[in-house]
Amino acid sequence: MSESMHAGNFTDLIGSANVLTAPADKAPYLVEWRDLYQGQTPMVLRPGSTAEVSAIIRYANQNNLKIVPQGGNTGLVGGQIPQETGQEIVLSLGRMNKVRQVDPEGFAITVEAGVVLETLQNEAEKAGRLFPLSLGAQGSCQIGGNISTNAGGTSVLAYGNTRDLVLGLEVVLPNGEIWNGLRSLRKDNTGYDLKHLFIGAEGTLGIITAATLKLFPKPKKLEAAFVGLADPASALRLFSIAREQAGPLLTGFELMPRIGVEFCLRHLEHTRDPLEAPHPWYVLMEISSGSEVFETRDLLEAILGEALEEGVVEDAAFAQNLQQVQDFWHIRHGMSEVQKAEGGSIKHDVSVPVASIPAFLDKAMAAVEDFVPGCRPVPFGHLGDGNIHFNVSQPLDADKQAYLDKWDAMNEIVHGIVLDFSGSISAEHGIGRLKKDLLTKVKSPIELELMRQIKRTLDPKGLLNPGRIL
Amino acid sequence: MSESMHAGNFTDLIGSANVLTAPADKAPYLVEWRDLYQGQTPMVLRPGSTAEVSAIIRYANQNNLKIVPQGGNTGLVGGQIPQETGQEIVLSLGRMNKVRQVDPEGFAITVEAGVVLETLQNEAEKAGRLFPLSLGAQGSCQIGGNISTNAGGTSVLAYGNTRDLVLGLEVVLPNGEIWNGLRSLRKDNTGYDLKHLFIGAEGTLGIITAATLKLFPKPKKLEAAFVGLADPASALRLFSIAREQAGPLLTGFELMPRIGVEFCLRHLEHTRDPLEAPHPWYVLMEISSGSEVFETRDLLEAILGEALEEGVVEDAAFAQNLQQVQDFWHIRHGMSEVQKAEGGSIKHDVSVPVASIPAFLDKAMAAVEDFVPGCRPVPFGHLGDGNIHFNVSQPLDADKQAYLDKWDAMNEIVHGIVLDFSGSISAEHGIGRLKKDLLTKVKSPIELELMRQIKRTLDPKGLLNPGRIL
Repeated sequence: MSESMHAGNFTDLIGSANVLTAPADKAPYLVEWRDLYQGQTPMVLRPGSTAEVSAIIRYANQNNLKIVPQGGNTGLVGGQIPQETGQEIVLSLGRMNKVRQVDPEGFAITVEAGVVLETLQNEAEKAGRLFPLSLGAQGSCQIGGNISTNAGGTSVLAYGNTRDLVLGLEVVLPNGEIWNGLRSLRKDNTGYDLKHLFIGAEGTLGIITAATLKLFPKPKKLEAAFVGLADPASALRLFSIAREQAGPLLTGFELMPRIGVEFCLRHLEHTRDPLEAPHPWYVLMEISSGSEVFETRDLLEAILGEALEEGVVEDAAFAQNLQQVQDFWHIRHGMSEVQKAEGGSIKHDVSVPVASIPAFLDKAMAAVEDFVPGCRPVPFGHLGDGNIHFNVSQPLDADKQAYLDKWDAMNEIVHGIVLDFSGSISAEHGIGRLKKDLLTKVKSPIELELMRQIKRTLDPKGLLNPGRIL
Repeated sequence: MSESMHAGNFTDLIGSANVLTAPADKAPYLVEWRDLYQGQTPMVLRPGSTAEVSAIIRYANQNNLKIVPQGGNTGLVGGQIPQETGQEIVLSLGRMNKVRQVDPEGFAITVEAGVVLETLQNEAEKAGRLFPLSLGAQGSCQIGGNISTNAGGTSVLAYGNTRDLVLGLEVVLPNGEIWNGLRSLRKDNTGYDLKHLFIGAEGTLGIITAATLKLFPKPKKLEAAFVGLADPASALRLFSIAREQAGPLLTGFELMPRIGVEFCLRHLEHTRDPLEAPHPWYVLMEISSGSEVFETRDLLEAILGEALEEGVVEDAAFAQNLQQVQDFWHIRHGMSEVQKAEGGSIKHDVSVPVASIPAFLDKAMAAVEDFVPGCRPVPFGHLGDGNIHFNVSQPLDADKQAYLDKWDAMNEIVHGIVLDFSGSISAEHGIGRLKKDLLTKVKSPIELELMRQIKRTLDPKGLLNPGRIL
């Protein structure tokens, strides 16, 4: 059957306005924001309901058509962009953007996959609740994509990854059947917990069309400190002290190196050094509480007092108001962007067991400096989650492209060290197409075979997001 | 091949002392504590290592022998007891009781499946940490069984179900291969998250031999109040207020009816009525904090102050010390046991969305009173999790056995109402053999087929805990 016949049949299913075949209409769906992937597709389908997604997938299954689901198109590993071969049809979930139910008393919300994360945050806010998932792309990423990639972000320490925020899912299976697993139960031990199959599966096992998600009480008090330290081992000890005292009220614990702060001071507007003297390393520590009763400032001071007494902290600045809390976060959030102004940057999104972070950083920084003398490691990120964005800026006088050509080789060195520490080569961003070949190197044959068995069982024709992950 | 030949071959694998064939040796593994299930088995195997489990399963797979894994034998749904046919070999994990690694800085611990829950709690305590899973059987249940059944307990509100406490697993697959998924990473997006397949699968997809689990800071301050209220709607509103103010520091929120407290006063030693006058309903509310700095009593008073102002609370008693906190919990923990002294009790372990609890209780209590006039509902439990132990004591003058004969019929009535509220017919205890037939009535054909596909894929011969769940 020809492409135009398929397009005609899809038009019968979802209307001509939602079957995009003109190059200009398709274009926004074919590139991602860093231009790393540029794909081709016969058409982009924009269903408006679960029934329409089901009809599309059923038809695709019958006609052996490959489908690439796409949310807000903010993924970083090429999962959502069709292959260059032009064989894969893009299924955009963006029109499925209804908030189906808000349940403040039950601390739950049910939304469709195409709801933008920021919209979801705002809906929770309106109901007097918090939806804690928070990340750079929140203004355009969609919750279906967040769930499909098990997104991380800056609130994982206190609230968990996206996986931990999901109570129930509605999924269109590879044969077009709809699995209604939309539950808002906190406890349910009735057989296999199927939702976890689809969370983080990057659209390879089914199309998530809706989700019931956990809501939380809104924090009413927020405290933050910008702390100067000698080394990552001190930061780890501070983390232990902070977690012991603050427990679940410790909502942020981010590690940054001096060079990253310097980059921000140099290239990021509205930035000033939070501490008088420079320190080799910094921690941005945040505490929040839903109660007006608690003296959260006392808690922050008690934590830093204990740390000062132990000699693990060199200096600390307390945010005096919400603006200063935001100023501290401004530096942390700017840390990725400012690296662009310093030439080429080779990136790694890795995690290791929390207690191994100091040793990992020692080894990995020494290894890349040995590999490219003069390179400038800027490792920063979520120390409390064991997740470091191990980015390495080029030497000051180097040729950018010549440096970037070493990407794979440097990755191999860093990932080797990550594996020595039983770490992960993709802590937050997933596998997609970017790390597919890597996966076969870092996973055991038994684990890979288990994954392949699951894929073959649910999607025997291999039509859903083929070539991603496996 | 004969049973004795198999026994001989197993002896070659794990030593004769660990292959129990004498009736007296096997007996403790063939009954569960309520005597609801009594099974038969050719032998009980007691491996001491993952390699031995692997060897056993490989041999069993080659010889089509059915295997029932058993931990502390405290399950409530017959999952761990071999069938009466005498065809199933019991695999006891009890000898695999090593603590492999304690990582206080990384808030993690790695233990073998046979470690008793209380031992695990103590190991965490020794390292200055908390392992929060807590339930009645903790002195004898084993962590492998807790994980395989996704155990609940009294700390789910703040710390989640067992599933939420697992960082990594080691599993012997149905073909005998060992999947080493023992990771202590907080973030890892490298393909399908396979551990969730085995958690809560009741040993039907693989044998969990070890796990890496989350640890938490130890609470240093504990507050509790025993609150009298007019109805469950008031309790729900109090929950909302408490959760808004205390957030994750709200570590307990248990609902009890007056009749349950009366049963305790009548049959449970060392019990006194915490409040002067009787109230139709009670809530036991607990707050804990890791910080010495916080005035947790102020927080508890602020919550109850707001609730009093709104008129949702009739009276409240504060625990003045740790002993009184324990006295309050003594009533709550005694509530199941005291029902024995009041004649027959028909039980339901159900959950509904938290906000539906008042309406569910109204309907379910009316329905059972309609079905058996004079019966005495004693619904109690984890309101904050939406999980109610909906137990119904016999009418005062009724014949016990005649009443208990109505078990299935009453279950059907209550479960019907649970389903009307999109609830679960097994919130904590799992499916096992007890609720296997029920499962086919409450799950959609699509969901059942997905589960069967997973089972067939991982265990094509159907040898691991056959006839449980599916």
